[in-house]
Amino acid sequence: MSPAGRRPGKPETRDAILEAARQSFSESGYDGTTIRAIGAAAGVDPALVHHFFGTKSALFAAAVDFPISPRAVLPGILATDIEHADIEHAGEQIVRFFLSLWEDPTSRRRLLAIVKSAVRYDAAAAMLREFLRREVVGTFVDALNTPDADLRATLVGSQLIGLAMVRYIVKVPPLATASTEVIVAAYAPTIQRYVNGRVDSIEPVAR
Amino acid sequence: MSPAGRRPGKPETRDAILEAARQSFSESGYDGTTIRAIGAAAGVDPALVHHFFGTKSALFAAAVDFPISPRAVLPGILATDIEHADIEHAGEQIVRFFLSLWEDPTSRRRLLAIVKSAVRYDAAAAMLREFLRREVVGTFVDALNTPDADLRATLVGSQLIGLAMVRYIVKVPPLATASTEVIVAAYAPTIQRYVNGRVDSIEPVAR
Repeated sequence: MSPAGRRPGKPETRDAILEAARQSFSESGYDGTTIRAIGAAAGVDPALVHHFFGTKSALFAAAVDFPISPRAVLPGILATDIEHADIEHAGEQIVRFFLSLWEDPTSRRRLLAIVKSAVRYDAAAAMLREFLRREVVGTFVDALNTPDADLRATLVGSQLIGLAMVRYIVKVPPLATASTEVIVAAYAPTIQRYVNGRVDSIEPVAR
Repeated sequence: MSPAGRRPGKPETRDAILEAARQSFSESGYDGTTIRAIGAAAGVDPALVHHFFGTKSALFAAAVDFPISPRAVLPGILATDIEHADIEHAGEQIVRFFLSLWEDPTSRRRLLAIVKSAVRYDAAAAMLREFLRREVVGTFVDALNTPDADLRATLVGSQLIGLAMVRYIVKVPPLATASTEVIVAAYAPTIQRYVNGRVDSIEPVAR
């Protein structure tokens, strides 16, 4: 291990691997991508790809540059393995966690770059789609374990990305300047309903 | 009136006016923009700007290239001046109308261009923000006439833009391929709550 936890390898080699990985994941999808092919495209030994990035799943996350690992974070937010957390508070927890990501300058910059690339380039959209499908929706489905969990995951995602668009990207007031507590009160019930409420009928709303 | 309802004027003159309008609206905002200044920047008489585009508000909509006029459409969806429409069905009506916009190829292309520009360019985001604030939020506030109507308008907008991002831009399944009725059932209660439900407390969700 080098000092300060830096990963080994010349930066240009790492960048070449990441670039080859982005191209392969966006063109061939996750299942159609192999470490061997990425190594070949980057002109390095596949063992070096493993050495730098670990598993294919970890390389995928590095290629998307997502600021957190959904598989590490989501189960704790959705279920009961964090103290006091349970499914009935998932809505509030998800909103608070999502806001904390966007309020952190480093992860906000990375999330902004992901959104901009996905809106601008079809290949980046394809890679993000695959990442969300596998890592976010997949984790959600595993944690929720209901037949419609994949629909629920995309409903949650749609409200969160919309919140980010209005608050952090287009910056429309008053949502752009509202306090965390206003945001949580407005969105937690929405997210909670998407997680475990009825989503298959138009019904009267609780007042 | 020329054939097929085409507006008068050379295309290059119209384009020059629109370009000058985009620059002025994004740099100086709506209130800081005058027809006179736009005419000067485009090298034409202000009377010609009026002749081509009518009011400053209409020129603003043309500059954003929004596919509908919020001031013409929103009051009917929110209130009671369309047969059978009333505030208790606003959620469903808004979702159906929004889907119809995105399912129409021409307006989808224009909406996509707006989103892409806003994500890519700060100036385009500024103009869109001003447009949403004045034309969409403003119309919503006039129709709803409650103290928190501006917050409610941005909540509605955040869910709709998020739906568009997931369904039409990043195209994450199953939301990308779900039927209109599935979308309406999932989102109408959310939008309805944002329009006239409680949005200031975390409360149990109706099941």
